[in-house]
Amino acid sequence: MILLGLDPGLGTTGWGVISAEGNRLSHVANGQIKTEPGMQLPRRLTLLFEALGAVIRTYQPGGAAVEEVLGNSNAQSTLKLGQARGVVLLAAATAGVAIGEYHPSIVKKAVVGTGGADKKQIQAMMAHLLPGAKLAGPDAADALAVAITHAHHLASARALARRVIPS
Amino acid sequence: MILLGLDPGLGTTGWGVISAEGNRLSHVANGQIKTEPGMQLPRRLTLLFEALGAVIRTYQPGGAAVEEVLGNSNAQSTLKLGQARGVVLLAAATAGVAIGEYHPSIVKKAVVGTGGADKKQIQAMMAHLLPGAKLAGPDAADALAVAITHAHHLASARALARRVIPS
Repeated sequence: MILLGLDPGLGTTGWGVISAEGNRLSHVANGQIKTEPGMQLPRRLTLLFEALGAVIRTYQPGGAAVEEVLGNSNAQSTLKLGQARGVVLLAAATAGVAIGEYHPSIVKKAVVGTGGADKKQIQAMMAHLLPGAKLAGPDAADALAVAITHAHHLASARALARRVIPS
Repeated sequence: MILLGLDPGLGTTGWGVISAEGNRLSHVANGQIKTEPGMQLPRRLTLLFEALGAVIRTYQPGGAAVEEVLGNSNAQSTLKLGQARGVVLLAAATAGVAIGEYHPSIVKKAVVGTGGADKKQIQAMMAHLLPGAKLAGPDAADALAVAITHAHHLASARALARRVIPS
C-alpha cells in the first residue's frame, strides 16, 4: 500500500510517500512545496493545491495522513496555517484519498519512541527507518514521519481485526 | 459588472451576488452554504468547495471580495475559520475570479457609515440598499455587504483613473 504523509504550511508544505507491505516500510519519494511570501494569497493557495494534486496523481496513494494542529497564540500564523491546511485536506479529499489525523505526540512516539522528540531527532530517525531516502528538508521529514505513523496504525488495525474476527 | 461577496466559515459560509452598473447597485442572489459539524473535516471542505464552485459557475462574477480576518484568541476556532477560508479563496482563484480583501471596519463604514456597526445594522442596511433582496441569514447579509464595499472601491478606482488619465 502506498501512503502519503503531509505537513501543511503556507510557505512550505512537506510531503512524503512510503510503501507499506505488512510491517516492511520503504521510501518512495519526498519533497517540499514552497510558495513565495510576496505572492497574493489566492495564488499561493492555488499553487499549493495544484502541486499537491500533481504529487497525488503521480504516486496514487491509497491513504494519506496529517498531524493534528494545536494552534498557537499568534492568531495570524494560525490563520495562515489553517488556510494552507484546508487546501491540503481538500486536495486529498477531491482526489478520493482518505485522510487520517494524528496528534503530534503520537507521531513522535511512533518514529522516535518518545512524545517529546525535536525536528532533528525526526530527521535522524527518517534516515534510519527509511534507508536511502534523501530528505528534501525538515518538513518533508515530518511528512514521512506522519506517513510511517499511519502505516503503523493501519497495521495494528488490521492485526486487531484479525484477532477479533478470525478468518 | 457582477460581483460576489463572501463570508467564509466552516459551519456556514455566506455568499451574495450583486450587479453594479456605475453607481447603481442591485441584488442578484444570496445564500448560505452549511456543512454539518458531525461530518469529517475533509468532507466538509469538499462540500464547501463544490457548493461555492456551483455558485460561481451560475453567476459568473467578474470579481469577488472577502473580509480580512483578524483572528481571535481561540486557536481552534481561528484554525477552523482558516481552513474554510483557504478553500473559499481557492474556489474563486481556480475559477479565475480575482478576490479583493477589506478590513471589517471598512465594510461596516461602506454600508452603515460607521466602523462599529453590528450584525443587525448590517442586515437592516442590506434591506435598505438592496430593496427586494430576501436575506438567507446574517452571513449572507455580511457577504452582500462585502460585495457592495467592493463595488464602491472599484467605482472610486475608476473615477480616480478618469481624473488622472483624461480620455
